[in-house]
Parts: sequence; structure tokens; C-alpha cells
Amino acid sequence: MKPIILEKKEIIQLLDFNEIINVIEQSFVDFFSGKALMPTPQDIMLEEFNGETHVKSAYVEGSKHYCIKIASGFFNNPKINLSSSQGMMILLEAKTGIPKCILLEDGQLTDYRTAAAGAVAAKYLANKDSENVIVVGTGIQAKLQVEFLLKIFPIKRLFVWGRSEDKAKDYCNYFLAKSTSFDFQIIKSIEEAQHLDIDIIITATPSRKALVPNKVVKKAVHINAIGADMPGKQELDEKIFFNAKVITDSTAQCAKSGELQHALKTGKITLDDVYSELGEIISKNKKGRENPEEITVFDSTGLGVQDLAISNYVFDKYCKMKKIN
Amino acid sequence: MKPIILEKKEIIQLLDFNEIINVIEQSFVDFFSGKALMPTPQDIMLEEFNGETHVKSAYVEGSKHYCIKIASGFFNNPKINLSSSQGMMILLEAKTGIPKCILLEDGQLTDYRTAAAGAVAAKYLANKDSENVIVVGTGIQAKLQVEFLLKIFPIKRLFVWGRSEDKAKDYCNYFLAKSTSFDFQIIKSIEEAQHLDIDIIITATPSRKALVPNKVVKKAVHINAIGADMPGKQELDEKIFFNAKVITDSTAQCAKSGELQHALKTGKITLDDVYSELGEIISKNKKGRENPEEITVFDSTGLGVQDLAISNYVFDKYCKMKKIN
Repeated sequence: MKPIILEKKEIIQLLDFNEIINVIEQSFVDFFSGKALMPTPQDIMLEEFNGETHVKSAYVEGSKHYCIKIASGFFNNPKINLSSSQGMMILLEAKTGIPKCILLEDGQLTDYRTAAAGAVAAKYLANKDSENVIVVGTGIQAKLQVEFLLKIFPIKRLFVWGRSEDKAKDYCNYFLAKSTSFDFQIIKSIEEAQHLDIDIIITATPSRKALVPNKVVKKAVHINAIGADMPGKQELDEKIFFNAKVITDSTAQCAKSGELQHALKTGKITLDDVYSELGEIISKNKKGRENPEEITVFDSTGLGVQDLAISNYVFDKYCKMKKIN
Repeated sequence: MKPIILEKKEIIQLLDFNEIINVIEQSFVDFFSGKALMPTPQDIMLEEFNGETHVKSAYVEGSKHYCIKIASGFFNNPKINLSSSQGMMILLEAKTGIPKCILLEDGQLTDYRTAAAGAVAAKYLANKDSENVIVVGTGIQAKLQVEFLLKIFPIKRLFVWGRSEDKAKDYCNYFLAKSTSFDFQIIKSIEEAQHLDIDIIITATPSRKALVPNKVVKKAVHINAIGADMPGKQELDEKIFFNAKVITDSTAQCAKSGELQHALKTGKITLDDVYSELGEIISKNKKGRENPEEITVFDSTGLGVQDLAISNYVFDKYCKMKKIN
């Protein structure tokens, strides 16, 4: 009873963005239901090699499998033409502990589930007629956030900001090659955004200081704050939190690792000022956007239940294709 | 660059007991050298299914790989004819985080490295002319402890005690089928051992109360206490510790999870009464057995460096066989 080994190529071929959005949406409900088990991650820090491995696991009551994710960042790898992102997800049978599937995804499923979470948050929090989007960052996550958002919103204009103008150009070329229907434009400073009619702001960088100033955040905007997922990381001016409706993936986790950590440190807001977790809104326990004018922020740090959801989804789809019970 | 996947059958065929003893001996030296990185294990407790998964990881400075072990005990499995022990070891390249080898060993390599640790301890601590052994327990570990010990000592008589006499008979039949050179005999009570001339006592059960009374532990004996590896587990009467030279695999870990936890609770001994860790003796920093009369106890809880050592050993041997660099 050898586990099924799925390579990255096979995995990518199985993915459907709309389906991923649905399973990720459900994973937030699972998390909010209190039926999720997510033990403290294990961190293996290989400082000698500028590398780190995090083991994150999750199980949801009633699920056939639980998931152990090995996710690594080895930041010297690009110097030798290797991806800094490495790792795999392992699905084990909840009843017996037997490993059923090893997904050799090199961190890509994490990228997809994170991008899908952004789309789910915007679905519940952004104005329905959102057309103009600014994306801060030009990496894989900045690309995927927009690709998933396109499944929910008819984006008309995309403004891109990146530290490197060359990378911002590469970013535009990426979408040009996909012949997407929207216009795109590089902005040289994020402050330019205050003169634009922005509906959604996406931040997806590894920044450790605020990139988005408060003054560009005007009424009616929704922000997906994706990059900050560790102590010290930050993309938004803390002041943005003072006038926004704040929604987290996990308030406890965001208080430690998300944008929320910095807003809390100011002492101007407390945990009581957080409006809700995303799963609470999807579960219809709380309302999402309540009026067109409000400013909403989704603080995303990433949950083990999202890993479980996407790996389960891939394995189910593979089994259906191969007619495996 | 897909990792090499090794199945249990392939792994077992590669194993040589003497070689395993050597690599495990070295792993204790690595641990004592302070060059080992072993982050806090992650515990996934699926109480609903009477199952638990522990993720244990280890890296030793200078090693080409680090190891992540997924080790599960699902205690309802035997009811459906499955082993309660499940899991795998994963070797990842220390420089890049790239997974290099997945060893689908279902917990067997843990069994072997634990048994080898017993042999290494006895090599340094038991009297060289040890002939008479009593083993408490009849499971796989009780078998392997004796098989590895045979590589170091010319055992002449083996006394076996088990809760179930049937299992004790099966145990004897196991060695009968291997046509080993020693005599074996089932004892109905461990107390019988006080009238026997025992050199080495091995305990290898999942017991949660003392099985070996103090009165059977006479001068010149060495004890390998293998079973206790979690809070609450116990096989030896705490009093045994009061007159013995105590050696641990890791004193910090034994104080929490080994036999030592119970001895410390009596208040009659403290951590200062622990003689040393095994690695310190192998490294010749301290002497092992100093006279034929002393009573020595090796408290074994299992170390991540042992997992790293045995998985590295298997992978190296596989690569040499297949001429892979």
C-alpha cells in the first residue's frame, strides 16, 4: 500500500481556479467551526545555509485525511538557479495514519491556496463592481492574486508597483502573454494611487516596513494584505487599521504574524477592534461589506486548513481521474 | 529532480546490523558534540481514532542532509489487521532544502535504530563476558534488542517474560526458527530472575507501571531500559536508580519522558546523580563500566540524530549500490 506520489507537473494539470476558490472558501468555514486541529508548527532553522523549513499540519473533524506540509525557504538557492521555495504536502488517512498521497509541489500549492484566499476575501468584502486594482509586488503571489481575483471580478485596470521597474515590466508581460482583457500600467510610486479610483489594493511582498501609506486608502476600498505572515513583516501603514473594518484569517495568528501585529503595537486599537475572522462571515454569522463606502482590510497569514483543503482537492481529483476509490 | 522513493522491502534488504550499530554509535557522539539541531517535535493527536503522529526532525552540522521523521501510532489498527506503527523518514539536502529521499519505512527504521542503541549502550556498560540475558517484553523491539545484542555479546541463555504466555512462546519460536545458538526459557514472573545469574536486563514494553522490582537487580548487572519514552511510561522500580550508575541518551529528555522521570519524582535523586549521557562515554570524555560489580542503567528515549543517522545510512548505501552520486 505505497502512497501515491504526485509530481508538480501532474498536480498543476489538475488545478481549476474556480474549484480551488470553493474549497478554500470551505476551509475558512471549517476553521471557524472549531473542528480544525492545527498543532504548533515545527521550525527547522538552518542558518548556516540561509534556509528554514516549517512543518505545518492540519486535520478537520470528519475529513478522511490529515495533512502534513513541509514548506521550506532556502534563500541562497536562486544564486544556483534553484527556487528558494521547496517542500511537499503529505496526506495521511485519519483513521489509520497510513500515508496515502505525497504531493511533491515545491511550495506551489501554498501559492495557489494563498491566492485563492485573497479572492474569497474580496468576494465577501470588496464592492461587487470593483474594476480598478492596484497590486504591490511583482512576484508569483502578486500574479496569482490577480489571476484568482479575475474569477470573481471583471477587472478593467490593473496598476502595478514593484521595487524594480524591470520586474514590473516582466509582470505586465506575463499578463500580456495571457491576453487578459484588462489594461495595465506601472506606477513608479505607490502614492500615485491616491489620484486613481482604486477599488482593491493587493499587497504581496516580503517587506518588513510599511509600503502603502494611509493617504492612498480612500473610502470604498478593500485591501488584501497578503505578504505579512511572520513577526516583523509589514506592508501597510498601521494607521490604515484605525479607520478600517479589519477581517483576519485567524485573529490569534495575525496578532503575532500579520499586519495586525503592528497596528496592535501602536496601542490605538486592541483585539476587540478586529471585526471578525473571514470564516465567520462566510458562515453568515457576521455580515461582510455593509455599505459601499467602508474601508475593509483582509489580513492573511495562511492556515493549515487551507493546505489540507487544497491537497485533499488535488488527491480527490486525481483519484476520480484514475478511478481509484 | 524527484526524490528517490524507497519502499520498506528495499530498505530492509539494505540493512546490516553491524553497520547500523556503528552509525548509531556515531550519532550519540554527534549529539554530545553539541552540533545537533533537534527542534521541538510536533504532535498531532487524533484522539477520535486512538491515533497520534509525531514529527521529529534532526540535523547535524556538516551533514549533507537533515531528516524529518513522521512517526505514527494508531492503536486501533491491529483490529483491522494493520500495524499500529506507520510513517516515513524524509531526507532533505541541508544546503538547498530539496527533498532527496523518502523512506517509506512504516516505523521500522525507528525499531532498528532503537535496538542498535541498546547494543551500543551494552557495549560500553555491560560486563564483557555477559552471557545471561533477561528480556521483559515479547514484541518487535524485544526481539530486535536481542538480535542486535548478539552482534556484541555471545549470549548463552535468554530468559523471556511477557504478560501473555502465548506471546512469550511465539517469541521463543521466532528465535528457534532463526536457529540461534543460545538457550531460551520463558519465566512466569520477573521475580524468578533473582535466582538466576543475570548479566543484562532488557525492558521493551509500553508499560505505565514498574515491572522490574529492585530485588532482581543484583551486582554486576547492566539494564537497557528501552520502553519508557513518554511521560507516564515506566518499566523499572524507581529504587533501582538509587544504587545504579545512570546513563541516558539525553538527560533532559529522560527527565521528562524516560525512567528517570519517576526516579526524580521520589526526590531521592537529582539530575546531578545522573552519571552521563551515552555520547559522553563513547567520546571518551567519561569512563563506561569502571568495575565488574557496579550496576549500570541505560535510559533510552530515542533521539532525532538516530533517525538522521539510520536514514542517511540507508540512502548512502542505496546510492552506492545504484552508483548514484
